[in-house]
Amino acid sequence: MKERYFEDLKIGDTFKSQAYQVGEDQIVSFAREFDPQPFHLDRAVADKTMFGGLFASGWHTAAITMRLFVQTLNFAEGAIGLGVDELRWPNAVRPDDVLQVETEILDVRESRSKPTHGIIRIRNVTTNQRGEIVQTMFASALVSRRTK
Amino acid sequence: MKERYFEDLKIGDTFKSQAYQVGEDQIVSFAREFDPQPFHLDRAVADKTMFGGLFASGWHTAAITMRLFVQTLNFAEGAIGLGVDELRWPNAVRPDDVLQVETEILDVRESRSKPTHGIIRIRNVTTNQRGEIVQTMFASALVSRRTK
Repeated sequence: MKERYFEDLKIGDTFKSQAYQVGEDQIVSFAREFDPQPFHLDRAVADKTMFGGLFASGWHTAAITMRLFVQTLNFAEGAIGLGVDELRWPNAVRPDDVLQVETEILDVRESRSKPTHGIIRIRNVTTNQRGEIVQTMFASALVSRRTK
Repeated sequence: MKERYFEDLKIGDTFKSQAYQVGEDQIVSFAREFDPQPFHLDRAVADKTMFGGLFASGWHTAAITMRLFVQTLNFAEGAIGLGVDELRWPNAVRPDDVLQVETEILDVRESRSKPTHGIIRIRNVTTNQRGEIVQTMFASALVSRRTK
């Protein structure tokens, strides 16, 4: 699989990730460790909420999005997150949903403080198998330059 | 432990979470599942980066912060995340760091669309055992009202 460097990206490039299915067991085990609220843990409780059933923690959706993004872009020396803005979860992720991430490169610029690196600005949109948006976010990340 | 409702919170309230120690095994296993980049997985690779050693995925820090926030505020019927802004990781989380979250209530308002709920705006600041800030964020969440 092709490894990417800063120079390989230009504004307007888009990338589509592979698909990732989220099982009910994973939703519950992530929640037990990181977001132990009853509607993420217990189907009977979740059925009575406005969501009408078990759904994943937004942080679980965010973590899965990171996995898909990292695997798709495959930066030669990784991408170091500088910050995330406007992280939103417009629809819930439910057991057995199949998620996919589309990444758009919004900006690319050389790093002033780290001349071996560049800074990219991206938008990640995560959708489910019906094309409904389950997460949107903007992020900036530091990635290695090929020519150092 | 006291369960909280929307009415129990007012602007300016602050809450300090319990402490949470992050082991090297947890850093690696979270990264393997959600952020499989070499500097989160392999100590030898991480030693050669600008971080000079293994460090946690920012999404792992975010997930731990959620756990500490949820346990501290202990909302009677949970808190549903509406969105997160300006998520930043000014310092890396390293093996055996002990994290703690301070939550400040920035705003409280009734929900127009869901009269059974209110919307809170918070700031979460996550620090390590040396008092260094490892994460900051703003968030909005939907929480239940006592009087319905």
